[in-house]
Amino acid sequence: MDLHEAYDTLLGEFVREYIVLSQIYYILGWDFETYMPPKGVKQRSEELAMMATLEHDRLTNPKIGELLKTIKNDPKYFSLDEEKKRNIELTERKYKRESKIPKELVEKLAKHYPIATDAWKKAKKESNYSLFKPALDKMLELTKEKAHYLDPNKEPFDALVDKYEPGMSSAQYTKLFDELKEGLIPIIKKCVNSPNQPNLSLIKRKVSIPIQKQLSEDIAKLVHYDLERGRIDETEHPFTTGYYDDVRITTHYYEEDFSDSFYSVLHEAGHGIYEQNLEHKYKYQLVGESASYGFHESQSRFIENLIGRSREFWEFYLPRLKEMTGNVFSDVELDPFVYAINEVKPSKIRIAADEVTYSLHIIIRFEIERDLLSGKITTEQLPEIWNAKYKEYLGVDIENDSEGVLQDSHWAGGSFSYFPSYAIGNIYNAQMLAKMVEDIPFKELIKKGELKSIIDWLIKNVHSVSNLYDPPELIKRITGEEISPKYFINYLEEKFSKIYGFS
Amino acid sequence: MDLHEAYDTLLGEFVREYIVLSQIYYILGWDFETYMPPKGVKQRSEELAMMATLEHDRLTNPKIGELLKTIKNDPKYFSLDEEKKRNIELTERKYKRESKIPKELVEKLAKHYPIATDAWKKAKKESNYSLFKPALDKMLELTKEKAHYLDPNKEPFDALVDKYEPGMSSAQYTKLFDELKEGLIPIIKKCVNSPNQPNLSLIKRKVSIPIQKQLSEDIAKLVHYDLERGRIDETEHPFTTGYYDDVRITTHYYEEDFSDSFYSVLHEAGHGIYEQNLEHKYKYQLVGESASYGFHESQSRFIENLIGRSREFWEFYLPRLKEMTGNVFSDVELDPFVYAINEVKPSKIRIAADEVTYSLHIIIRFEIERDLLSGKITTEQLPEIWNAKYKEYLGVDIENDSEGVLQDSHWAGGSFSYFPSYAIGNIYNAQMLAKMVEDIPFKELIKKGELKSIIDWLIKNVHSVSNLYDPPELIKRITGEEISPKYFINYLEEKFSKIYGFS
Repeated sequence: MDLHEAYDTLLGEFVREYIVLSQIYYILGWDFETYMPPKGVKQRSEELAMMATLEHDRLTNPKIGELLKTIKNDPKYFSLDEEKKRNIELTERKYKRESKIPKELVEKLAKHYPIATDAWKKAKKESNYSLFKPALDKMLELTKEKAHYLDPNKEPFDALVDKYEPGMSSAQYTKLFDELKEGLIPIIKKCVNSPNQPNLSLIKRKVSIPIQKQLSEDIAKLVHYDLERGRIDETEHPFTTGYYDDVRITTHYYEEDFSDSFYSVLHEAGHGIYEQNLEHKYKYQLVGESASYGFHESQSRFIENLIGRSREFWEFYLPRLKEMTGNVFSDVELDPFVYAINEVKPSKIRIAADEVTYSLHIIIRFEIERDLLSGKITTEQLPEIWNAKYKEYLGVDIENDSEGVLQDSHWAGGSFSYFPSYAIGNIYNAQMLAKMVEDIPFKELIKKGELKSIIDWLIKNVHSVSNLYDPPELIKRITGEEISPKYFINYLEEKFSKIYGFS
Repeated sequence: MDLHEAYDTLLGEFVREYIVLSQIYYILGWDFETYMPPKGVKQRSEELAMMATLEHDRLTNPKIGELLKTIKNDPKYFSLDEEKKRNIELTERKYKRESKIPKELVEKLAKHYPIATDAWKKAKKESNYSLFKPALDKMLELTKEKAHYLDPNKEPFDALVDKYEPGMSSAQYTKLFDELKEGLIPIIKKCVNSPNQPNLSLIKRKVSIPIQKQLSEDIAKLVHYDLERGRIDETEHPFTTGYYDDVRITTHYYEEDFSDSFYSVLHEAGHGIYEQNLEHKYKYQLVGESASYGFHESQSRFIENLIGRSREFWEFYLPRLKEMTGNVFSDVELDPFVYAINEVKPSKIRIAADEVTYSLHIIIRFEIERDLLSGKITTEQLPEIWNAKYKEYLGVDIENDSEGVLQDSHWAGGSFSYFPSYAIGNIYNAQMLAKMVEDIPFKELIKKGELKSIIDWLIKNVHSVSNLYDPPELIKRITGEEISPKYFINYLEEKFSKIYGFS
């Protein structure tokens, strides 16, 4: 078998099938979260376990090792183009990583995901952590086991992080987060202590769910999320799943606060357009996936915040909101509304947090999951520690677990070491924005509601680059610099000093 | 490896996994028909093909042959209980059958299903057969190829029929259908020629879709379809899919005629309760599947017609319908309404056909698909022949393909040799009813809306028996007799002579 034949077999027979299998897994997961009958949990758990082990089998087939050897030993390997070399590298990484995890563990984890998520949903509904704890214990135990197989010499958090941010570590996160905290805290203080506080009654007005659904479609289209290749559904916790021509987002509607779902949709549509605009010629190749969870968050939070919470956006959209909601907002003026939309206020719920305090929610989760995984804290202590950290970092009192430790679904799904990517996303996107404004008149375009050039910039620089580079290199290629929180801090300072009128 | 070990491996490793895979296939199919974004067709086609080939791989693994040999050569084989022997027999049949079909063909068929179905939907919408013809040609060609692999010595129709009605043949169908026609035609004539015709304006009144959805839930619950283990969605063509704890039905709402969806829901719920009440101890075994498509239809049409179109049902349900629909039906009286619900009138659309003419729709399809498969007629001639047969058998003029040859989705999905099962279902269910009335006061129970004993009878005699017996034996065990159309003819004569007032 020559180099090219080996490459084609590797991609056509193993990578391609692995990706198709993983897409089926995501469809089953989406269905589980959206429309599956409540008592279908156990059956679904069997199905997910089956798909996960099939994926694992595909990825760990010893033939992959042989093909990789054939390819890399061939003298012509070095003359392969970059895309092919990248595909080979990514395949080798995945093969090596996945081969460390026993199939039985993969099966157990996949089986436990719907069961733990179901327990989480019930616990959240009843605000009763004890209903979730046994399932969480098991998920944590299985996750630690996985971390141990991946790298017994690393802290579990660090062994797991590669899946979300290749090359990251808890040490680097700590460093970035320290810098972030240092920049955020003075801004938070100035905002919170400002004598003029926003008037939230400008936002929190009843908008019927059918109207909110129309808003969802309208803004999804506005940011070029393709509804012919996507959908918007409702789930307890908003998320995005899918790939290329079938990318689905979800939201959660609250009649009393349209902005909740409004920003969920913008956020998830930001994820959605990333997946929809991955380079089509790389479809079913590892190079054709997104760069990392942090890059994904950079796109979702770019749309949600840098666009959706800007004054310019509302200059364009407020008249439209008024038109679409009857007379609900007819008395509302631009500046007070933008002020309310951008209220900085330490709060309990991450996904409803403002741009400034948001990262503190992530830092809390980062510290907790690192310590949970290392065994420094137990699930028994979890609610107490959660609440104490919310008091310490954000100054808020958590009154029940539903608005505390039960608010996010990630741990139920086995996603540990994932949360930090959210904060990394903030850092990336402000850094990208600083570059984007050199290329196109960002604010002027938004004012006119002409988002096409902005989305095109993201497609060109991020989406269609797909997984050609690891995140550290990708951010450097896009912005000319290594990852740095300073742009994000600068962005916040500039924006909020204007809104809150401090200097 | 001893007998029991071989049996456990066979069931645990191969049959179980095959069934889980096939359930995943059905979920993907359901999603394709309900919520998949329109441009996801090609991606879904890859996913379905992947699942179909995985199923095929599982079922045709040569180890199955070895395990079967080990089991059957063991002298203790004969002392195995009947359930185990049946599982072995069913596995052997499936293994032998599936092994004849090349994997490539399985893949092609699965890939073509969503593409052909998509083409069919568009063609139906535009009532333009030529949009569907190329996809149908390809599906027909692949199906003929499959039939040839299954048995080159049989007519293609007969090679395929085992999947739907084990042991049936076109010769037997012809015989049964001749008997059926002979009984039906005089009844149809008497009804059609009756001077008193029903007043359809008693039914065809506008009922809003949200109210119709409430009706759907109400009647689904009434017939004990478990919505905790099921759902009701909307599709172009109603269907049921799923297994045990996740069984899904669909319907299609028309504002101007509530009865359309009403009977679709009763029909599909009849399928649904069959799947939900399969014997739980047989789950993930071949003996734990339904007996045949004909038996499935016997259950759906039992609920739809024998219960849902009876005078006794409306004695109970008409007041409820009135209550749930405001004053839409407030002036309606029982007998004229039952008369209208049971109008016998040769018509164009199978799923809207009355109980008497329904079987003629099936006979037309049976003749056509038999001839299409044998090459006696071409897809070029199809609309013309379809329309000619509708004129000949039912006396109706088909004005466009949407209400003609494009009305059903089956051929787009590759389901050839399936239609006759619908008529067989009518024969089975009337035969079962004749037996049921010996055991329980069928009519009195319906009058009171107390369906539990009726459903329990079906669970005991059909659902929970699952796939322990082939259809010919099952019908004999239930009724003491071989399949016979006479009960169905008697049932129709008795019912319609009363309604139409002839003798």
